[in-house]
Formats: sequence, structure tokens, C-alpha cells
Amino acid sequence: MAKIITAKNVTKKEVITQHAAVLFRQKGFAGTSMRELAEKLGIEASSLYNHIGSKSEILQTICFAVANEYNSQLEKTESSSEKVAVVIENIIRFHIHMMLHRFDEVFVANHEWKQLQEPFLSNFLLQRKSYEAKLIALIKKGIQTKEFVNINPHVAVLTILSAVRGLEFWQRHKKNLEQKSLEQDIVYHLLNGLKK
Amino acid sequence: MAKIITAKNVTKKEVITQHAAVLFRQKGFAGTSMRELAEKLGIEASSLYNHIGSKSEILQTICFAVANEYNSQLEKTESSSEKVAVVIENIIRFHIHMMLHRFDEVFVANHEWKQLQEPFLSNFLLQRKSYEAKLIALIKKGIQTKEFVNINPHVAVLTILSAVRGLEFWQRHKKNLEQKSLEQDIVYHLLNGLKK
Repeated sequence: MAKIITAKNVTKKEVITQHAAVLFRQKGFAGTSMRELAEKLGIEASSLYNHIGSKSEILQTICFAVANEYNSQLEKTESSSEKVAVVIENIIRFHIHMMLHRFDEVFVANHEWKQLQEPFLSNFLLQRKSYEAKLIALIKKGIQTKEFVNINPHVAVLTILSAVRGLEFWQRHKKNLEQKSLEQDIVYHLLNGLKK
Repeated sequence: MAKIITAKNVTKKEVITQHAAVLFRQKGFAGTSMRELAEKLGIEASSLYNHIGSKSEILQTICFAVANEYNSQLEKTESSSEKVAVVIENIIRFHIHMMLHRFDEVFVANHEWKQLQEPFLSNFLLQRKSYEAKLIALIKKGIQTKEFVNINPHVAVLTILSAVRGLEFWQRHKKNLEQKSLEQDIVYHLLNGLKK
């Protein structure tokens, strides 16, 4: 029976999670079976359970790993002594990087979180709410320091998050757009829009 | 047997389409049956077919009615002698209005177009591509007239469309956000971001 082949420093669980993220993105969490996942990994469905408890556990792993990355990046930037505009710029860049380089996991966390079971569902939503609240506080700070125009900070955050999340739909434009121009111009558009 | 009750100036087909749009948004096109739609309308499934040929026909009607509205609005603005910034502002406002006031139909056109049958599928995609191309040409014009900064027009259009489309996810924020502030601030953020 075939074994899961892992690169150095990548655990078997991580390999399973990565393959699952691709399937969940393409077919949805509900539409993916453990049998399909096992087939994709080239192993027996039964041996999948040596590494992972359930399909739900994989979804939890994906959603909370993504949440961890966003949260820890935000914490780093929060403690910086940079101007607010620089902090926001770094956050926008980070979101774009995640959308481009961790596309499957981010897509699954964005779309399939509704399939999380409790208490994970509520916890995930609380974390997302808290993340947005921190971004709103940052925009508020930028308005107070007169770096930004007097805009509704909540609306500004939702505009930024939506614009960046829109990268989901851009796959079909990929060949026409250079990644550097993409990042540079989205950041400019969204950040310049806040400035006086 | 109950009859479909229509307001003045609204045809029975329009009433069916409106109710179908709500169901397609909530449960997806594939997840909605003609029987459910008939129940929602309070009529027999068989009498539904007096007004409409098939479920696919309803989806075509929704998608192409939405396309008509966006296209005719764009045509109106294209022929105006206003500055490009004003034209773009009007287009952004129109998109926000459509998202807020025609939410079900726009959502269905955005998500369920994949379920269109040929030749409607290809035709719908061609129209969308042509719509985007016209917006890109407008941004280019704004760069030429020095109203806008030298940004990749394709990226700018995708940023604007994504930000506005993000209103889909804002339902849960609805109670915290006044519609006027929402519209004003999104327009400001996206338009100011393009200006020098």
C-alpha cells in the first residue's frame, strides 16, 4: 500500500490538509468524501484515519491555521511604531500575499467556515469579528493622526477586505496581470483612497 | 386553486422571477425545485408552467435582466460629456444601488451564471467581458486626461468591482452601517484612490 510522501519539514497531517484544501475549494466541504481525499493522496481511506480523526477535523485545521496566520501578522504590525498608513499598507500586502500564495486554504476558510461544528463555528466567527474590530481601530487611529480622511472606518475596512478578497474571482484574469503590478496598484488604490 | 397575485404594472412572469431569485440565492439554482417555487407562490407546480417554460428559463431571465440594467446604465454614462471621474463615480453608485436594492437578482447573476445553458452561458460571459473592457477603457481615458494616477486600468476596475461586490458579505453588518454613509464612503475611497 502506498505511503504518503512528505517533503522535509512537512508532516503527514500537513500534506493531507493541503490536498484536502484543494478538494474542498473545488467541490466544497460537503461535496468531498474522505474516499476521494484518500485517492488523491494515493492511499487507502482506512489509513487516512491513522493521521486524522474526521473530515470535520481537517476543516477545523484549515480554518484555524488561516486564522492564526492573519492574527499573528496583525499582532506584529500592531506593536510597530510605524505610521498607521504603513501598518495598513503592510496588512493589505499581507492579505494579497495570502490570497495569491495560500489560495486554497484561504478560499476554504472564506467559504466553508459555515460547515464548522460548534464550538469551532462560534469561535471562528468571534475571531473574525475581533480581527475586523482591530482593523477598524487602526483606521480610526489614522483619522485621529490626520493621516486619513474622515471616513467611516467600518466602511473603509469592509471596502479593503472586499477588494482584496475579490482576488478570488481574478483567476481568469491571471494571465493578463503581472503579480507585481497587481499588488502595487491594489495597495495604491486602496491606501491613496484613504489619504487626504 | 390560488392565483398569483400581482401588483399593478408587474407581470406574473416578473412575480415568478422575483420569488425564484430569492430561492436561488438562498438555496442555489441546483438546490431549488419548481415544486418549492410553486409552494412559495402559493400555486400548483403544474400551473407554474403556464407562465414559464423551465427552471433554466427563469435563470436566463434573471441573468439577462441584470445584464441589461448594467449595460444600459453604462451606455448612458458613456455618451455623457462629463469628466471621467464623474462617470466612474456614477457607475460605482449604480453598482452599489443594484447590490442594495436588487440584491437577490444580482447575487444570482453573480453566482449562478455557471448554471446557464449554452448559448446563454457563453453569451453572458462575453457581455461581462465586454462590460469590463468598457470600464477599463474609461479608466484609461481618465489616466490620459490626467484625472487619474498612472495605475493599471485592469487592476483598478477589478478593485472597484470587487469592493462593490463585497456588499454581498455585508449583510451581517447592515444594522451598524447607514446606507448613505456606506455609499458615500465607498465611492470616496475608491474614487479618491484613483486621483492624484
